[in-house]
Amino acid sequence: MSLIVQKFGGTSVGDIDRIMKAAEKTRAEFDRGNQLAVVVSAMSGVTNQLVAYCDAITDDHDTREYDSIVASGEQVTAGLFALALQKYGLKARSWLGWQVPIVTDTQHGRARIVDIQTEDLRACLAAGEIPVVAGFQGLSDGGRISTLGRGGSDTSAVALAAALNAERCDIYTDVDGVYTTDPRIVTRARKIPRVSFEEMLEMASVGAKVLQVRSVAMAMRHRVRVQVLSTFAPEIGSDLPGTLIVDEDEIMEKELVSGLAFSRDDAKITLEGVHNAPGLAASIFAPLSNAGIIVDMIVQDIALGKDAITNMTFTVGKRDLAQAVRLFEEERAAGRLNFKAIHTDSDIVKISAIGVGMKSQSGVALKMFQILAEKGINIEVISTSEIKTSVLIKDAYTELALRALHTAYGLDAA
Amino acid sequence: MSLIVQKFGGTSVGDIDRIMKAAEKTRAEFDRGNQLAVVVSAMSGVTNQLVAYCDAITDDHDTREYDSIVASGEQVTAGLFALALQKYGLKARSWLGWQVPIVTDTQHGRARIVDIQTEDLRACLAAGEIPVVAGFQGLSDGGRISTLGRGGSDTSAVALAAALNAERCDIYTDVDGVYTTDPRIVTRARKIPRVSFEEMLEMASVGAKVLQVRSVAMAMRHRVRVQVLSTFAPEIGSDLPGTLIVDEDEIMEKELVSGLAFSRDDAKITLEGVHNAPGLAASIFAPLSNAGIIVDMIVQDIALGKDAITNMTFTVGKRDLAQAVRLFEEERAAGRLNFKAIHTDSDIVKISAIGVGMKSQSGVALKMFQILAEKGINIEVISTSEIKTSVLIKDAYTELALRALHTAYGLDAA
Repeated sequence: MSLIVQKFGGTSVGDIDRIMKAAEKTRAEFDRGNQLAVVVSAMSGVTNQLVAYCDAITDDHDTREYDSIVASGEQVTAGLFALALQKYGLKARSWLGWQVPIVTDTQHGRARIVDIQTEDLRACLAAGEIPVVAGFQGLSDGGRISTLGRGGSDTSAVALAAALNAERCDIYTDVDGVYTTDPRIVTRARKIPRVSFEEMLEMASVGAKVLQVRSVAMAMRHRVRVQVLSTFAPEIGSDLPGTLIVDEDEIMEKELVSGLAFSRDDAKITLEGVHNAPGLAASIFAPLSNAGIIVDMIVQDIALGKDAITNMTFTVGKRDLAQAVRLFEEERAAGRLNFKAIHTDSDIVKISAIGVGMKSQSGVALKMFQILAEKGINIEVISTSEIKTSVLIKDAYTELALRALHTAYGLDAA
Repeated sequence: MSLIVQKFGGTSVGDIDRIMKAAEKTRAEFDRGNQLAVVVSAMSGVTNQLVAYCDAITDDHDTREYDSIVASGEQVTAGLFALALQKYGLKARSWLGWQVPIVTDTQHGRARIVDIQTEDLRACLAAGEIPVVAGFQGLSDGGRISTLGRGGSDTSAVALAAALNAERCDIYTDVDGVYTTDPRIVTRARKIPRVSFEEMLEMASVGAKVLQVRSVAMAMRHRVRVQVLSTFAPEIGSDLPGTLIVDEDEIMEKELVSGLAFSRDDAKITLEGVHNAPGLAASIFAPLSNAGIIVDMIVQDIALGKDAITNMTFTVGKRDLAQAVRLFEEERAAGRLNFKAIHTDSDIVKISAIGVGMKSQSGVALKMFQILAEKGINIEVISTSEIKTSVLIKDAYTELALRALHTAYGLDAA
């Protein structure tokens, strides 16, 4: 008897019919003799509606109130899912974050899980009951409800699987696995049967929206085997119908490039005419870091000439762009930073080739540059890591670039 | 400095604009130098939607799950209302039932408040903060969320006012007070400035839907002065612009009839041909009582003849009708009850004249019978209490009867 944690995302529980269908997946696993714990998201659209309510009052909300408001979405689904399981004759009950409790820190709106107290859940499981845990939420100091940030239900599920020492964490969503790239853009994209934590982490961080980055990082840290699969696919009898995210050791054949991810979430900032002195990078990035703005790709032009004037280019999240520009203007006004001009560009996309095989083989980056050059696509910024090569290009070339690279890296379906 | 509890119903917090308007009422009282505690309902329509979700899965739900689901509506409003008050520069925070905690019994779906632990709320008030308490909900055994039943937010508000020893409990709703009868039917209906707990209790119990019966009973028991007033009326400077529900002693001029209430919530059941022996009433009403079905008006025909066969007529809530009939069939099948036939009628209305003046003056019932006879309206059942005279008539005559009685009792506006 294995313990499996199942997580159902917003579209999988989008209405009562879908909740009943999702609960069938739970029943099927239960009937196979497994112990089950379920984690649910809010019904699709609900969280957006609740956030819109908050935004309509003030865009600078008390995050503790915000958390209490938006956490209600998962509360509803957890109860409904428990009712659905009961309807199928199973013993089930809902568990809210504060009931488990899932203890978090006090960073409301983006809290981190500190501890999951599993005693009550284990008793529930031992009694043959299926706990249905509201995702995305926890309990903060002073008995306040906290939330983990958007997509946090994946993190809830992986954390719960780790705390319960589960055999596997199945993330049910509206796609049937992780693909070599977005099939809506590249029709020949293939489902990947197994992918390593590291690869998945890179994919998630550059825009493959199947899983939340934090949940993948947590899965990697705790070595939780995660399967991504579709709620809507019929039962095909296969043991592992989706994509399994596992330790690299569990993957026999390591592809040079496993997949192509892309992200339109970033914006490019260029500070023109900064003085290249020791401490420049710190004086540029410290204000961003203090404001919680994450900087991704960074390129510094080579400083020529005696006055060592250079340009610094980097990317931040689009939603942080306005704040970042404001911060730089403030820094300049305060005399802490000097630059001639600030340029921004939101019409960009970051395309990344990801594969653990890159660790041992070279040529991936070179091939990317060649293919893009052949198509006449200008590369604005390049960054590479051990298992990833990324380029920033004009947004308009996204589809063209992805299709060409997908073929070039041998990823096309037969 | 007085402490006032304000309660805002579903239509008063139906959207963000209305929440902002309602919060203005709180700010106005605060600016007058009062301490405030606020109780909120779910946004109008939300609870119905959540109940519909539950019903779509099963009509026989686990009430603990049901409670957790429907309580989310008030959770959202409490947070939004706190944000609205903060937006106005006031200190505020939301309190959920389990956070206060408002301890209830384990009758999920219709729980009763056992205790409100006010230490934290008092600390909040002492710090100049306005607690915004989610109505309708509490904390039951085992840390589960409970709800007080439909309209329970009124009860939450009155209970909180009692626990905090508040000067007054202001119930903000979509009408500006208690009227002599429904103004949509009788255009000459008048707003009553003051009404006694007993009168209000009778009015609420026979269909004047301004306040929940339980909340009035609780106000009476704890002598909480309650004001019913409109969220939507402009500030008119008057200290008490609505209807004040108070102890009879606070009312100088006692009307013979204060108001006319009516209820279409009941259905009539006649058990034809029951054997009039000792224990008959018990054998009829025990099964209903055990099933939690409340019986209201009861009439037993005079048993004539040696075999003492009679008919028993009474009313139950329309929603309990089917179950009541089923129970009687079961009782008959089990040989515990004998009757010839069972007749039901849902096309009925109960009309009641209410007034504390009836305690000392007679003639109210007689006038009712005369007026209805003049209009050719047949009375099916009569019941009277110390301050109330009720008749059951055909639903179709509701408006005719109300208008005629309203004039006859001298209630018409000048």
